[in-house]
Amino acid sequence: MYAGPVQDLIDEFGRLPGIGPKSAQRIAFHLLKLPMEDAMRLSRSIVAAKEKVSFCHRCWNVAETAAEGETECGICRDTRRDTTILCVVEEPRDIVAIEKTQEYKGRYHVLQGTMNPIEGVGPDQLRIKELVARLALEDIDEIILCTNPNIEGEITAGYLARQLKPLGMRVTRPASGLPVGGDLEYADELTLGRALEGRRDIDA
Amino acid sequence: MYAGPVQDLIDEFGRLPGIGPKSAQRIAFHLLKLPMEDAMRLSRSIVAAKEKVSFCHRCWNVAETAAEGETECGICRDTRRDTTILCVVEEPRDIVAIEKTQEYKGRYHVLQGTMNPIEGVGPDQLRIKELVARLALEDIDEIILCTNPNIEGEITAGYLARQLKPLGMRVTRPASGLPVGGDLEYADELTLGRALEGRRDIDA
Repeated sequence: MYAGPVQDLIDEFGRLPGIGPKSAQRIAFHLLKLPMEDAMRLSRSIVAAKEKVSFCHRCWNVAETAAEGETECGICRDTRRDTTILCVVEEPRDIVAIEKTQEYKGRYHVLQGTMNPIEGVGPDQLRIKELVARLALEDIDEIILCTNPNIEGEITAGYLARQLKPLGMRVTRPASGLPVGGDLEYADELTLGRALEGRRDIDA
Repeated sequence: MYAGPVQDLIDEFGRLPGIGPKSAQRIAFHLLKLPMEDAMRLSRSIVAAKEKVSFCHRCWNVAETAAEGETECGICRDTRRDTTILCVVEEPRDIVAIEKTQEYKGRYHVLQGTMNPIEGVGPDQLRIKELVARLALEDIDEIILCTNPNIEGEITAGYLARQLKPLGMRVTRPASGLPVGGDLEYADELTLGRALEGRRDIDA
Protein backbone atom coordinates (compact mmCIF):
# COMPACT_ATOMS: atom_id res chain seq x y z
CA MET A 1 0.00 0.00 0.00
CA TYR A 2 2.90 2.37 0.75
CA ALA A 3 6.22 2.96 -0.98
CA GLY A 4 8.80 0.26 -0.10
CA PRO A 5 10.76 1.88 2.76
CA VAL A 6 7.59 3.11 4.50
CA GLN A 7 6.02 -0.36 4.38
CA ASP A 8 9.31 -1.90 5.61
CA LEU A 9 9.30 0.49 8.56
CA ILE A 10 5.66 -0.33 9.41
CA ASP A 11 6.41 -4.08 9.12
CA GLU A 12 9.46 -3.88 11.38
CA PHE A 13 7.58 -2.00 14.12
CA GLY A 14 4.61 -4.34 13.73
CA ARG A 15 6.87 -7.24 14.78
CA LEU A 16 7.55 -5.72 18.20
CA PRO A 17 5.51 -7.01 21.15
CA GLY A 18 2.31 -5.09 21.91
CA ILE A 19 2.43 -3.08 18.67
CA GLY A 20 -0.47 -3.83 16.32
CA PRO A 21 -0.70 -2.80 12.64
CA LYS A 22 -2.41 0.53 13.47
CA SER A 23 0.20 1.50 16.08
CA ALA A 24 3.02 0.48 13.75
CA GLN A 25 1.59 2.77 11.07
CA ARG A 26 1.21 5.62 13.54
CA ILE A 27 4.80 5.23 14.75
CA ALA A 28 6.15 5.00 11.19
CA PHE A 29 4.52 8.28 10.14
CA HIS A 30 5.60 9.88 13.37
CA LEU A 31 9.21 8.93 12.55
CA LEU A 32 8.90 10.28 9.01
CA LYS A 33 7.78 13.66 10.35
CA LEU A 34 10.48 13.73 13.05
CA PRO A 35 13.71 15.73 12.58
CA MET A 36 16.40 13.48 11.04
CA GLU A 37 18.57 13.62 14.19
CA ASP A 38 15.79 12.33 16.48
CA ALA A 39 15.07 9.35 14.23
CA MET A 40 18.79 8.59 13.94
CA ARG A 41 19.09 8.62 17.73
CA LEU A 42 16.45 5.88 17.98
CA SER A 43 18.20 3.84 15.28
CA ARG A 44 21.59 4.22 17.00
CA SER A 45 20.18 3.34 20.44
CA ILE A 46 19.16 -0.08 19.06
CA VAL A 47 22.64 -0.70 17.63
CA ALA A 48 24.34 0.50 20.83
CA ALA A 49 22.17 -1.65 23.09
CA LYS A 50 22.73 -4.74 20.97
CA GLU A 51 26.48 -4.15 20.86
CA LYS A 52 27.08 -3.11 24.47
CA VAL A 53 24.52 -5.15 26.35
CA SER A 54 24.32 -8.89 26.72
CA PHE A 55 23.30 -11.28 29.48
CA CYS A 56 25.03 -12.18 32.75
CA HIS A 57 26.61 -15.63 32.32
CA ARG A 58 25.49 -16.54 35.82
CA CYS A 59 21.94 -15.21 36.32
CA TRP A 60 20.90 -14.11 32.79
CA ASN A 61 20.07 -10.57 33.88
CA VAL A 62 21.04 -7.82 31.42
CA ALA A 63 24.64 -6.70 31.83
CA GLU A 64 27.12 -4.54 29.97
CA THR A 65 29.14 -6.81 27.70
CA ALA A 66 32.56 -7.51 29.24
CA ALA A 67 35.55 -6.36 27.16
CA GLU A 68 37.18 -9.70 27.95
CA GLY A 69 36.09 -12.84 29.79
CA GLU A 70 32.52 -13.67 30.76
CA THR A 71 29.86 -10.97 31.20
CA GLU A 72 28.62 -10.62 34.78
CA CYS A 73 25.84 -8.29 36.00
CA GLY A 74 26.18 -5.74 38.80
CA ILE A 75 24.19 -7.85 41.27
CA CYS A 76 26.28 -11.02 40.75
CA ARG A 77 29.48 -8.93 41.07
CA ASP A 78 28.26 -7.32 44.33
CA THR A 79 30.11 -9.17 47.16
CA ARG A 80 27.62 -7.92 49.80
CA ARG A 81 24.75 -9.99 48.39
CA ASP A 82 23.63 -13.18 50.15
CA THR A 83 24.77 -15.99 47.81
CA THR A 84 22.77 -18.71 49.59
CA ILE A 85 19.35 -17.48 48.45
CA LEU A 86 18.14 -17.28 44.87
CA CYS A 87 15.10 -15.48 43.52
CA VAL A 88 13.86 -16.91 40.19
CA VAL A 89 12.11 -14.34 37.98
CA GLU A 90 10.73 -14.31 34.43
CA GLU A 91 12.42 -11.18 33.06
CA PRO A 92 15.15 -8.65 33.98
CA ARG A 93 12.44 -6.01 34.58
CA ASP A 94 11.17 -8.14 37.50
CA ILE A 95 14.58 -7.70 39.18
CA VAL A 96 14.15 -3.92 38.98
CA ALA A 97 10.72 -4.21 40.66
CA ILE A 98 12.08 -6.43 43.46
CA GLU A 99 15.18 -4.27 44.01
CA LYS A 100 12.91 -1.25 44.54
CA THR A 101 11.36 -2.95 47.59
CA GLN A 102 14.80 -3.15 49.29
CA GLU A 103 13.45 -6.32 50.97
CA TYR A 104 15.71 -8.79 49.20
CA LYS A 105 19.47 -9.15 49.51
CA GLY A 106 20.07 -12.44 47.68
CA ARG A 107 20.89 -13.14 44.06
CA TYR A 108 18.60 -13.78 41.07
CA HIS A 109 18.07 -16.16 38.22
CA VAL A 110 16.23 -14.88 35.13
CA LEU A 111 14.26 -17.50 33.17
CA GLN A 112 13.95 -15.12 30.17
CA GLY A 113 10.34 -16.07 29.65
CA THR A 114 7.54 -18.11 31.10
CA MET A 115 6.07 -21.50 30.26
CA ASN A 116 3.11 -21.15 27.93
CA PRO A 117 1.71 -24.43 26.59
CA ILE A 118 -0.72 -22.60 24.27
CA GLU A 119 2.11 -20.69 22.54
CA GLY A 120 4.35 -23.75 22.65
CA VAL A 121 6.88 -22.34 25.15
CA GLY A 122 8.13 -25.27 27.24
CA PRO A 123 10.90 -25.59 29.86
CA ASP A 124 13.57 -26.04 27.16
CA GLN A 125 13.07 -22.48 25.88
CA LEU A 126 13.71 -21.06 29.35
CA ARG A 127 16.98 -20.81 31.30
CA ILE A 128 16.03 -23.81 33.46
CA LYS A 129 18.93 -26.12 32.58
CA GLU A 130 21.24 -23.17 33.38
CA LEU A 131 19.46 -22.90 36.76
CA VAL A 132 19.92 -26.61 37.49
CA ALA A 133 23.60 -26.42 36.45
CA ARG A 134 24.02 -23.44 38.76
CA LEU A 135 22.50 -25.26 41.74
CA ALA A 136 25.11 -28.00 41.31
CA LEU A 137 27.94 -25.45 41.56
CA GLU A 138 26.63 -22.93 44.09
CA ASP A 139 25.69 -23.43 47.71
CA ILE A 140 22.00 -22.44 47.71
CA ASP A 141 19.71 -22.89 50.75
CA GLU A 142 16.49 -21.34 49.44
CA ILE A 143 14.90 -20.68 46.08
CA ILE A 144 12.05 -18.15 45.85
CA LEU A 145 9.92 -18.83 42.77
CA CYS A 146 8.95 -15.27 41.96
CA THR A 147 7.23 -15.80 38.61
CA ASN A 148 4.10 -13.73 37.89
CA PRO A 149 0.90 -14.58 39.81
CA ASN A 150 -0.93 -15.45 36.57
CA ILE A 151 -1.65 -18.77 34.83
CA GLU A 152 1.69 -18.97 32.96
CA GLY A 153 3.65 -17.93 36.05
CA GLU A 154 1.86 -20.51 38.21
CA ILE A 155 2.51 -23.28 35.66
CA THR A 156 6.19 -22.33 35.54
CA ALA A 157 6.48 -22.17 39.34
CA GLY A 158 4.70 -25.55 39.65
CA TYR A 159 7.07 -27.15 37.14
CA LEU A 160 10.14 -25.69 38.85
CA ALA A 161 8.93 -26.75 42.32
CA ARG A 162 8.62 -30.36 41.12
CA GLN A 163 12.14 -30.23 39.65
CA LEU A 164 13.81 -28.49 42.58
CA LYS A 165 12.15 -29.93 45.70
CA PRO A 166 13.93 -33.33 45.31
CA LEU A 167 17.28 -31.49 45.34
CA GLY A 168 16.72 -30.77 49.04
CA MET A 169 16.68 -26.97 49.29
CA ARG A 170 13.81 -24.83 50.58
CA VAL A 171 11.50 -23.77 47.73
CA THR A 172 9.13 -20.84 48.41
CA ARG A 173 6.68 -18.61 46.57
CA PRO A 174 5.72 -15.02 47.57
CA ALA A 175 2.39 -14.62 49.36
CA SER A 176 -0.74 -14.04 47.30
CA GLY A 177 -3.30 -11.71 48.84
CA LEU A 178 -4.90 -8.30 48.82
CA PRO A 179 -2.78 -5.50 47.36
CA VAL A 180 -1.77 -2.93 49.99
CA GLY A 181 -3.92 0.18 49.63
CA GLY A 182 -6.48 -1.77 47.62
CA ASP A 183 -10.20 -1.94 48.28
CA LEU A 184 -11.76 -5.21 49.48
CA GLU A 185 -14.85 -4.52 47.41
CA TYR A 186 -12.89 -4.49 44.16
CA ALA A 187 -10.67 -7.52 44.82
CA ASP A 188 -11.41 -10.45 42.49
CA GLU A 189 -12.67 -13.58 44.21
CA LEU A 190 -9.49 -15.56 43.49
CA THR A 191 -7.30 -12.96 45.19
CA LEU A 192 -9.70 -12.59 48.11
CA GLY A 193 -9.86 -16.38 48.46
CA ARG A 194 -6.08 -16.62 48.51
CA ALA A 195 -5.89 -13.76 51.02
CA LEU A 196 -8.27 -15.57 53.40
CA GLU A 197 -6.51 -18.90 52.90
CA GLY A 198 -3.17 -17.28 53.74
CA ARG A 199 -4.48 -15.30 56.75
CA ARG A 200 -2.06 -14.63 59.60
CA ASP A 201 -2.36 -14.08 63.34
CA ILE A 202 -2.05 -10.45 64.34
CA ASP A 203 0.84 -9.65 66.67
CA ALA A 204 -0.35 -8.16 69.95
CA MET B 1 17.83 1.81 37.06
CA TYR B 2 19.38 -0.06 34.11
CA ALA B 3 22.84 0.08 32.55
CA GLY B 4 23.24 3.11 30.21
CA PRO B 5 22.47 1.62 26.77
CA VAL B 6 19.40 -0.28 28.05
CA GLN B 7 17.95 2.86 29.64
CA ASP B 8 18.72 4.85 26.45
CA LEU B 9 16.83 2.25 24.42
CA ILE B 10 13.83 2.37 26.80
CA ASP B 11 13.85 6.19 26.71
CA GLU B 12 13.97 6.33 22.91
CA PHE B 13 11.04 3.93 22.52
CA GLY B 14 9.13 5.75 25.28
CA ARG B 15 9.19 8.90 23.10
CA LEU B 16 7.19 7.23 20.32
CA PRO B 17 3.44 7.90 20.18
CA GLY B 18 1.25 5.41 22.06
CA ILE B 19 4.19 3.73 23.82
CA GLY B 20 4.15 4.16 27.59
CA PRO B 21 7.07 3.42 29.98
CA LYS B 22 5.96 -0.21 30.51
CA SER B 23 5.64 -0.94 26.77
CA ALA B 24 8.99 0.74 26.10
CA GLN B 25 10.62 -1.53 28.68
CA ARG B 26 8.95 -4.59 27.21
CA ILE B 27 10.10 -3.69 23.69
CA ALA B 28 13.66 -2.95 24.86
CA PHE B 29 14.05 -6.35 26.52
CA HIS B 30 12.47 -8.02 23.52
CA LEU B 31 15.11 -6.38 21.30
CA LEU B 32 17.92 -7.46 23.64
CA LYS B 33 16.78 -11.08 23.37
CA LEU B 34 16.32 -10.91 19.59
CA PRO B 35 18.97 -12.26 17.20
CA MET B 36 21.40 -9.48 16.23
CA GLU B 37 20.28 -9.51 12.59
CA ASP B 38 16.60 -8.91 13.44
CA ALA B 39 17.41 -5.92 15.64
CA MET B 40 19.74 -4.49 12.99
CA ARG B 41 16.97 -4.80 10.39
CA LEU B 42 14.72 -2.59 12.54
CA SER B 43 17.53 -0.07 13.02
CA ARG B 44 18.28 0.01 9.29
CA SER B 45 14.60 0.34 8.31
CA ILE B 46 14.48 3.62 10.26
CA VAL B 47 17.59 4.96 8.49
CA ALA B 48 16.32 3.79 5.07
CA ALA B 49 12.88 5.35 5.53
CA LYS B 50 14.34 8.67 6.66
CA GLU B 51 16.78 8.75 3.75
CA LYS B 52 14.53 7.52 0.95
CA VAL B 53 11.15 8.92 1.95
CA SER B 54 10.09 12.54 2.14
CA PHE B 55 6.91 14.45 1.44
CA CYS B 56 5.22 15.36 -1.85
CA HIS B 57 5.88 19.07 -2.55
CA ARG B 58 2.30 19.45 -3.75
CA CYS B 59 0.02 17.48 -1.39
CA TRP B 60 2.38 16.52 1.52
CA ASN B 61 1.64 12.83 1.21
CA VAL B 62 4.64 10.51 1.73
CA ALA B 63 6.67 9.97 -1.42
CA GLU B 64 10.00 8.45 -2.38
CA THR B 65 12.56 11.24 -2.38
CA ALA B 66 13.29 12.39 -5.94
CA ALA B 67 16.92 11.99 -7.10
CA GLU B 68 16.66 15.47 -8.58
CA GLY B 69 14.01 18.19 -8.62
CA GLU B 70 10.98 18.30 -6.36
CA THR B 71 9.53 15.15 -4.77
CA GLU B 72 6.04 14.27 -6.05
CA CYS B 73 3.85 11.39 -4.82
CA GLY B 74 2.28 8.71 -7.03
CA ILE B 75 -1.20 10.22 -6.80
CA CYS B 76 -0.11 13.73 -7.84
CA ARG B 77 1.91 12.21 -10.72
CA ASP B 78 -1.09 10.15 -11.92
CA THR B 79 -2.54 12.02 -14.94
CA ARG B 80 -5.87 10.14 -14.72
CA ARG B 81 -6.85 11.79 -11.42
CA ASP B 82 -9.44 14.57 -11.37
CA THR B 83 -7.44 17.71 -10.59
CA THR B 84 -10.51 19.88 -9.88
CA ILE B 85 -11.42 18.19 -6.62
CA LEU B 86 -9.31 18.10 -3.48
CA CYS B 87 -9.74 15.93 -0.41
CA VAL B 88 -8.13 17.41 2.72
CA VAL B 89 -6.98 14.77 5.24
CA GLU B 90 -5.01 14.81 8.49
CA GLU B 91 -2.38 12.17 7.74
CA PRO B 92 -1.03 10.06 4.84
CA ARG B 93 -2.67 6.95 6.37
CA ASP B 94 -6.07 8.58 5.74
CA ILE B 95 -5.27 8.58 2.01
CA VAL B 96 -4.73 4.82 2.14
CA ALA B 97 -8.12 4.36 3.82
CA ILE B 98 -9.90 6.53 1.23
CA GLU B 99 -8.10 4.91 -1.73
CA LYS B 100 -9.34 1.50 -0.53
CA THR B 101 -12.96 2.64 -1.03
CA GLN B 102 -12.27 3.28 -4.75
CA GLU B 103 -14.96 6.00 -4.45
CA TYR B 104 -12.66 8.98 -4.95
CA LYS B 105 -10.72 9.95 -8.05
CA GLY B 106 -9.51 13.43 -7.13
CA ARG B 107 -6.30 14.59 -5.49
CA TYR B 108 -5.44 15.07 -1.81
CA HIS B 109 -3.93 17.57 0.56
CA VAL B 110 -2.37 16.27 3.79
CA LEU B 111 -2.49 18.66 6.76
CA GLN B 112 0.10 16.55 8.64
CA GLY B 113 -1.81 16.90 11.88
CA THR B 114 -4.97 18.30 13.36
CA MET B 115 -5.78 21.45 15.31
CA ASN B 116 -5.63 20.77 19.02
CA PRO B 117 -6.01 23.88 21.21
CA ILE B 118 -5.30 21.86 24.40
CA GLU B 119 -1.94 20.65 23.10
CA GLY B 120 -1.22 24.04 21.50
CA VAL B 121 -1.43 22.87 17.88
CA GLY B 122 -2.84 25.75 15.86
CA PRO B 123 -3.30 26.32 12.10
CA ASP B 124 0.30 27.47 11.71
CA GLN B 125 1.66 24.01 12.59
CA LEU B 126 -0.44 22.41 9.83
CA ARG B 127 0.02 22.56 6.03
CA ILE B 128 -2.78 25.14 5.72
CA LYS B 129 -0.76 27.98 4.18
CA GLU B 130 0.51 25.42 1.63
CA LEU B 131 -3.15 24.54 0.92
CA VAL B 132 -4.10 28.20 0.42
CA ALA B 133 -1.07 28.74 -1.84
CA ARG B 134 -2.10 25.67 -3.83
CA LEU B 135 -5.65 26.95 -4.32
CA ALA B 136 -4.27 30.13 -5.87
CA LEU B 137 -2.31 28.11 -8.46
CA GLU B 138 -4.63 25.16 -9.19
CA ASP B 139 -8.14 25.18 -10.64
CA ILE B 140 -10.14 23.57 -7.82
CA ASP B 141 -13.96 23.35 -7.84
CA GLU B 142 -14.60 21.39 -4.66
CA ILE B 143 -12.79 20.75 -1.39
CA ILE B 144 -13.86 17.79 0.76
CA LEU B 145 -12.83 18.36 4.40
CA CYS B 146 -12.14 14.77 5.34
CA THR B 147 -10.62 15.31 8.82
CA ASN B 148 -11.55 12.78 11.53
CA PRO B 149 -15.12 12.89 12.92
CA ASN B 150 -13.82 13.72 16.43
CA ILE B 151 -13.46 17.00 18.34
CA GLU B 152 -10.05 17.95 16.88
CA GLY B 153 -11.12 17.00 13.36
CA GLU B 154 -14.33 19.02 13.66
CA ILE B 155 -12.43 22.07 14.94
CA THR B 156 -9.98 21.80 12.04
CA ALA B 157 -12.77 21.34 9.47
CA GLY B 158 -14.65 24.31 10.95
CA TYR B 159 -11.58 26.52 10.77
CA LEU B 160 -10.82 25.48 7.18
CA ALA B 161 -14.45 25.99 6.11
CA ARG B 162 -14.33 29.59 7.39
CA GLN B 163 -11.05 30.21 5.52
CA LEU B 164 -12.04 28.52 2.25
CA LYS B 165 -15.74 29.40 1.77
CA PRO B 166 -14.99 33.06 0.89
CA LEU B 167 -12.69 31.83 -1.92
CA GLY B 168 -15.79 30.70 -3.81
CA MET B 169 -15.35 26.93 -4.24
CA ARG B 170 -17.70 24.23 -2.96
CA VAL B 171 -16.66 23.05 0.53
CA THR B 172 -18.08 19.70 1.73
CA ARG B 173 -17.69 17.25 4.58
CA PRO B 174 -18.40 13.46 4.46
CA ALA B 175 -21.73 12.34 5.96
CA SER B 176 -21.86 11.39 9.64
CA GLY B 177 -24.15 8.52 10.52
CA LEU B 178 -24.47 4.90 11.51
CA PRO B 179 -21.57 2.67 10.48
CA VAL B 180 -22.59 0.09 7.88
CA GLY B 181 -23.02 -3.33 9.52
CA GLY B 182 -23.28 -1.69 12.93
CA ASP B 183 -26.02 -2.25 15.47
CA LEU B 184 -28.47 0.58 16.26
CA GLU B 185 -28.56 -0.48 19.89
CA TYR B 186 -24.83 0.12 20.31
CA ALA B 187 -24.59 3.42 18.44
CA ASP B 188 -23.71 6.35 20.69
CA GLU B 189 -26.34 9.06 20.93
CA LEU B 190 -24.26 11.64 19.04
CA THR B 191 -23.84 9.32 16.04
CA LEU B 192 -27.49 8.28 16.13
CA GLY B 193 -28.56 11.95 16.38
CA ARG B 194 -26.41 12.84 13.38
CA ALA B 195 -27.75 9.86 11.43
CA LEU B 196 -31.35 11.02 12.04
CA GLU B 197 -30.52 14.64 11.25
CA GLY B 198 -28.92 13.57 7.95
CA ARG B 199 -31.70 11.15 6.96
CA ARG B 200 -32.41 10.69 3.28
CA ASP B 201 -35.43 9.76 1.18
CA ILE B 202 -35.41 6.17 0.01
CA ASP B 203 -35.41 5.73 -3.77
CA ALA B 204 -38.44 3.81 -4.99
